[in-house]
Amino acid sequence: MQIQIVAIGKIRESYLREGIGVYSTRLSRLHKISLLDLPEERISAKSSESEKRLAIEKEGRKLMAAAPDTSVIVALDPTGAILSSPELSARIAEWELKGQGNISFFIGGPFGLSPEVISHADLVLSLSRMTFPHELVRLMLIEQIYRADCIRKGIPYHK
Amino acid sequence: MQIQIVAIGKIRESYLREGIGVYSTRLSRLHKISLLDLPEERISAKSSESEKRLAIEKEGRKLMAAAPDTSVIVALDPTGAILSSPELSARIAEWELKGQGNISFFIGGPFGLSPEVISHADLVLSLSRMTFPHELVRLMLIEQIYRADCIRKGIPYHK
Repeated sequence: MQIQIVAIGKIRESYLREGIGVYSTRLSRLHKISLLDLPEERISAKSSESEKRLAIEKEGRKLMAAAPDTSVIVALDPTGAILSSPELSARIAEWELKGQGNISFFIGGPFGLSPEVISHADLVLSLSRMTFPHELVRLMLIEQIYRADCIRKGIPYHK
Repeated sequence: MQIQIVAIGKIRESYLREGIGVYSTRLSRLHKISLLDLPEERISAKSSESEKRLAIEKEGRKLMAAAPDTSVIVALDPTGAILSSPELSARIAEWELKGQGNISFFIGGPFGLSPEVISHADLVLSLSRMTFPHELVRLMLIEQIYRADCIRKGIPYHK
């Protein structure tokens, strides 16, 4: 099993990089984990709607190109399915049981994911109905992947 | 308007302390904000159910004693109301309009909040159906309080 987190944009806050590093180290003892940041397209608050749409589409294509063809795709979106931690863990266990070797989690930039990515995803997942900075979402997601592992493998959650 | 976050247990992770500090500084420019950590009762995974219940009840009484009598109480619980960021902002604006000077957010320890705290709360709020470490919940909450301020006051979200 290999889990990949592909996200748009760099993490500017050092404290978030540190937190993500903590969980990444813990996860690397359980299975392959890779984190990939892709450059965000330049869009500003002043960009027109069609410019924004175009940029999000480009970002979407970069995300999909980064995942192996056979990978399960989980797209993070606030309008997606609300799962509890045991439910997410059960979904991962299901994919594993079906012999899926790769799971790719996609996190969009400040303007979210393109409709193409959303329709391509095996699961559209909402961590919260609230809007969080996409950099913080990465920490929240990697923590949930680690928690899902602990539940699935029956190992105690290391504080 | 004064906002207080009262939580059970210390924050051990320095990166979370740093992140909470970042938002605390931003919030302090908008209104009074205070963060209070109360010591957690000693309970272990081996403690009996009644020992756990007793400890959570004690923690609950400490939380309630820490809030001003007239304060609006928001208890964080994964089974609570799922609000979007604009909805939380609107609730805070409503309380402000009614002349409520204080809002106290309560975050329990690893075993959650007592039924007494839950029934006493003006709002039981769920940030997510997923379980997050209570230390990370503090960062998620303070970010949402800052975001709610930006929405309510119409100021741009400072990255």
